[in-house]
Amino acid sequence: MKALSRVGRIARAMTLACLLYVVALATVGPALAADPSGAATLLDEPGAPVDYVWVIIASALVFVMQGGFAMLTAGLCRAKNVVNLMMKNLMDFTIGSLSFFIVGFALMFGADKGGLIGTSGWLLAGDNYDVGTYLLFLFQVMFAATAATIVAGAVAERLKVRAYFLYAVVVCAVIYPIYGHWVWGGGWLASLPYGVGHVDFAGSGVVHTVGGFMGLAGAIVLGPRIGKFDKHGKAVAIPGHSIVLAALGVFILWFGWYGFNAGSTLSASELRTAVIAVNTTLAASAGAVSSLIAIYAVTKKLDVGMALNGAIAGLVGITAPCAWVEAWAAVVIGLVAGVVVVFGVLFLDRIGVDDPVGAVSVHGLNGIWGLLAVGLFADGTYGLATTEAPTVVGLFYGGGFGQLLAQGIGAVVAAAWAFGMGYLLFKGLDMLVGIRVSPQEEVEGLDLGEHGGRAYPNFPVLEDVPYRG
Amino acid sequence: MKALSRVGRIARAMTLACLLYVVALATVGPALAADPSGAATLLDEPGAPVDYVWVIIASALVFVMQGGFAMLTAGLCRAKNVVNLMMKNLMDFTIGSLSFFIVGFALMFGADKGGLIGTSGWLLAGDNYDVGTYLLFLFQVMFAATAATIVAGAVAERLKVRAYFLYAVVVCAVIYPIYGHWVWGGGWLASLPYGVGHVDFAGSGVVHTVGGFMGLAGAIVLGPRIGKFDKHGKAVAIPGHSIVLAALGVFILWFGWYGFNAGSTLSASELRTAVIAVNTTLAASAGAVSSLIAIYAVTKKLDVGMALNGAIAGLVGITAPCAWVEAWAAVVIGLVAGVVVVFGVLFLDRIGVDDPVGAVSVHGLNGIWGLLAVGLFADGTYGLATTEAPTVVGLFYGGGFGQLLAQGIGAVVAAAWAFGMGYLLFKGLDMLVGIRVSPQEEVEGLDLGEHGGRAYPNFPVLEDVPYRG
Amino acid sequence: MKALSRVGRIARAMTLACLLYVVALATVGPALAADPSGAATLLDEPGAPVDYVWVIIASALVFVMQGGFAMLTAGLCRAKNVVNLMMKNLMDFTIGSLSFFIVGFALMFGADKGGLIGTSGWLLAGDNYDVGTYLLFLFQVMFAATAATIVAGAVAERLKVRAYFLYAVVVCAVIYPIYGHWVWGGGWLASLPYGVGHVDFAGSGVVHTVGGFMGLAGAIVLGPRIGKFDKHGKAVAIPGHSIVLAALGVFILWFGWYGFNAGSTLSASELRTAVIAVNTTLAASAGAVSSLIAIYAVTKKLDVGMALNGAIAGLVGITAPCAWVEAWAAVVIGLVAGVVVVFGVLFLDRIGVDDPVGAVSVHGLNGIWGLLAVGLFADGTYGLATTEAPTVVGLFYGGGFGQLLAQGIGAVVAAAWAFGMGYLLFKGLDMLVGIRVSPQEEVEGLDLGEHGGRAYPNFPVLEDVPYRG
Repeated sequence: MKALSRVGRIARAMTLACLLYVVALATVGPALAADPSGAATLLDEPGAPVDYVWVIIASALVFVMQGGFAMLTAGLCRAKNVVNLMMKNLMDFTIGSLSFFIVGFALMFGADKGGLIGTSGWLLAGDNYDVGTYLLFLFQVMFAATAATIVAGAVAERLKVRAYFLYAVVVCAVIYPIYGHWVWGGGWLASLPYGVGHVDFAGSGVVHTVGGFMGLAGAIVLGPRIGKFDKHGKAVAIPGHSIVLAALGVFILWFGWYGFNAGSTLSASELRTAVIAVNTTLAASAGAVSSLIAIYAVTKKLDVGMALNGAIAGLVGITAPCAWVEAWAAVVIGLVAGVVVVFGVLFLDRIGVDDPVGAVSVHGLNGIWGLLAVGLFADGTYGLATTEAPTVVGLFYGGGFGQLLAQGIGAVVAAAWAFGMGYLLFKGLDMLVGIRVSPQEEVEGLDLGEHGGRAYPNFPVLEDVPYRG
Repeated sequence: MKALSRVGRIARAMTLACLLYVVALATVGPALAADPSGAATLLDEPGAPVDYVWVIIASALVFVMQGGFAMLTAGLCRAKNVVNLMMKNLMDFTIGSLSFFIVGFALMFGADKGGLIGTSGWLLAGDNYDVGTYLLFLFQVMFAATAATIVAGAVAERLKVRAYFLYAVVVCAVIYPIYGHWVWGGGWLASLPYGVGHVDFAGSGVVHTVGGFMGLAGAIVLGPRIGKFDKHGKAVAIPGHSIVLAALGVFILWFGWYGFNAGSTLSASELRTAVIAVNTTLAASAGAVSSLIAIYAVTKKLDVGMALNGAIAGLVGITAPCAWVEAWAAVVIGLVAGVVVVFGVLFLDRIGVDDPVGAVSVHGLNGIWGLLAVGLFADGTYGLATTEAPTVVGLFYGGGFGQLLAQGIGAVVAAAWAFGMGYLLFKGLDMLVGIRVSPQEEVEGLDLGEHGGRAYPNFPVLEDVPYRG
Repeated sequence: MKALSRVGRIARAMTLACLLYVVALATVGPALAADPSGAATLLDEPGAPVDYVWVIIASALVFVMQGGFAMLTAGLCRAKNVVNLMMKNLMDFTIGSLSFFIVGFALMFGADKGGLIGTSGWLLAGDNYDVGTYLLFLFQVMFAATAATIVAGAVAERLKVRAYFLYAVVVCAVIYPIYGHWVWGGGWLASLPYGVGHVDFAGSGVVHTVGGFMGLAGAIVLGPRIGKFDKHGKAVAIPGHSIVLAALGVFILWFGWYGFNAGSTLSASELRTAVIAVNTTLAASAGAVSSLIAIYAVTKKLDVGMALNGAIAGLVGITAPCAWVEAWAAVVIGLVAGVVVVFGVLFLDRIGVDDPVGAVSVHGLNGIWGLLAVGLFADGTYGLATTEAPTVVGLFYGGGFGQLLAQGIGAVVAAAWAFGMGYLLFKGLDMLVGIRVSPQEEVEGLDLGEHGGRAYPNFPVLEDVPYRG
């Protein structure tokens, strides 16, 4: 109770502060500068309309990935926790987007301070009331929310929803934007003196490694679900409640990924988008195929859950290199990604970490793989077509070890930052409000305990049964 | 039986009339004028390709909202009525789009007659066989069907499917287009001598207030579902059968709303689309957050159904003002919308109106809120960038009460027109074919009685149970 | 066992061959020619950005149809086979896209050899590392996978998953691309000396007739499911397990179809896209309406499954003629399509062919209807606006029987090729690995037998019950 009311007080205070701020803004009126109507921008850049169409639609595609994550996570978890999961999936976007609007965007893309953080653009106010800035915000807010939602799967079926709300604030306001600034906001990783500096085209590292390793921290701080490991410490499979929802989630995610990857050009004049979209397709396909083969080799079962995760793994793996590699390399990257996810899942099971949906392996490990793949397969045919950007060249194309080194440094930093900050965050939340539901709530399902309702009240739900393999 | 065969006769007669008409058209051949191939338009307007891409994709996004409504409505209703709901959701679009094609589009966008109705463009025939006219029709038919489908939720679980079919014809052929003409077709509301006249950027009023208040009329004429109110008149919660479908529906609706709002520029050269899309995002987020806080304050439950409706409420609220306000105002508009939906739902429960999915509050009340918000928050930075259109200025930015007055008049007219016509329509249908299923059918579920099948034949379905709150 | 290991050996050999090939490619490096960065293309074609945006988004829309097919097929089949169906739906795309990448694309769009096959572009290697070629591949790989996935429904609930994997390889590598070359790759059907040659705007024949008739071959080779026909040979309805998933699938498919049809211009400068999108909408609506009326006339039931299939039938029917007809003709084409699917389904039931989801009627028969409709309704207003392409004129517009003849020839060839090759393929697979699961597996469900898991482990599933009509 006391913890709750403390959260309540924090929320009240934040709300008040925001309201005061907007009242102040309204009094002052919109800023003088910038181009809020778009008329001036249109005059300056006759090619702007197609760029805006491109980025807005790509943003919508990235948005719908939220629905994909919701379906995938729900499908891979049990019926008794679905209300809770839907609330987390909805609220990480809504809370997260407001946090990113108020604080995160400025930290990530504001005027750079020492290569470490951005310092302008709070609430898109003042000079930021400009069509170009809004467009950038639109695309980027979707990415921030994606990083946040990745974690929901790793901490599923035992994390308190109130803790998750606070988590969403911190991730989108601080943790994600700061690392993002280092890579995409002109920060120190982008300026590394190896290769062309650390590069991450669409966010294998910025979004997926960060999301995956925060999830790992959460899963470790929480500990495994009741019943996940038997008395000998051997992992017990806990099948999700709907493979059809999981499959739907993957198809929606894959669909949205065309916006995620190809949209990351931020300009329609980069015709390399065609290569990006093809690479995205083939890597996902290869990931599904190789993960199915790998899991079949280990368990002799045609495990559709693993094949679905393999497709996502391929997508995560190609996210950083999508713009810099040829189609056959995308296939290879996807094939490796599919194998990584299988052995990642088996490895976490072995060491006693419970990640209900495989988020750590799919996003965390394959995010790293994607970053490294740039350093291996980038073929030197592309920087950005419309600028003086240098082309990216990996080890296999005579680029030497420079780019690979830059990629490796970025990967280590991403994993360490996300894991470290995530660990502190979840530990802190545990002290502040407690992060794990009671064992009774966990066994009965979080839906009854946390929400006073059920996801499927018209259907009888079976008690947990051992996996019938 | 007699009523049914009367419907049958009407349907036969209409079909025959249409067939005769198209035979006549085929004999005459396509009209001489206009530009059916698009070649002339391309010469005249070199920027047309990106506009066409923009509007077609936006139309597809608005289309997919039909799937979102279907999932949301199904999820919030009981398993025994799902076949019926899916049929209604499919057929309101299909019947409605054909009605709008034959009659509605001409009434809405045809040559204006006295500010009241349009009078040309029936069946897109003759000179309307033109790529520009077809493009406008494409976008608008999606909006007409959206207005129609909003009602399905308010009258769910007791309205006869045959009555719904006739309802869909009338709404898309007459009720929606006539009000639409007044605002978007050059009619009298657009010409009000206050502010710049009544404006409604993407249809808070035209689509959502109209849909919501027709739904209110339907819910009142039908009366509440059996069991919705106890003997003391107190509302009993009847939980829907799948929160995961409801959540999926909201994600799909939100996704489609980027087309709904940003697409309403009808031109890619309006770079203000970036502002519109950001406002759409933030208002939806704010609506979910505030409705969750509001319902928690009242019931002490973290009610995900209400948070989902809050997101839609935020979207409805921002639909009219999306192009004319700054991001922080979008947040405020969404916060208010989320609270409106909570108290709207509680109020309807109090006065004995049964709206199973909250459509009246989400769409009807927040449609009004959206219209008024234009008169408050419009900041004067935008009319249309590429024309001489005057900028819209609300009360908070020194525009005085003129615009607010124009908005208020439009809101009252929308609500009165929709409620009045809806009331007449449902009363008329009740006399013609009867609109409510028998109590036995209602208790057993409309699926068995109206369709002779079930939605989930492989699963046992529980009898209705009292809400376990 | 022996059969399996043979499959395993084939797979190993293929994998090895591919790996060797890519190693060879990596050693050689990317080809000299072509434009992998897009910079040269941008200089040559200033209008390229909007075309690329158009085709990439259309491709994403066609991709998401995979999710639509997955939901529709799952919804119309029984809960006990859903894991199996999800795996097939995922793997036909993933295996199929890799096959099309390695072999199929070259056969379909490579340098023409005698009007019969294409012969260049394997693995998009060498000179094919070009943004324009990648863009074409992107759009086309989605179509190849669509043709493949249509079959999954017709052979559902009894086909071994391993046989399906091999099927997917062959269809996307050989069967689909060769027929596709004849129509879209400059092959002999496109050059028929009647009308303007055989034309198929977006693939009623290339994709749907081919998919539908391969499905027919599969259904015949497999024989009906246990329990589908009673001892008198009368068809027994086996209802699917979730009408809400089926409805969702249809909404997703319809949504994606805007990319499928309108995207087939491959250029945004073809403003005829507006007409295409309107025709697509109206034909789908008309198909749903007429199929509902037709099935009601026969069975006196408002069968939502049939209405859903009717919408898809309308979409299939309009796919070939969408660019060449006026809106009213699209309505007529849709109305006919809806009736065709009803009587197609009843006819197959009568002759003892078991097609669980109606794929043969929806795609096979209506694919033919769509091809013929071009020869009837093409109104001579459009070839391609931006080229010297001749306009297409059908019988009703004074074009005589020439175009109709070309369409009829193409339709017969498509059906014969697909049925013949499909028959050989399924017979061959039956000899190689066996194609039908054991009766025990079929009764228990393919999920337990083939995958060792269930789709809905948290819910009790009813034993099969006779249809409660």
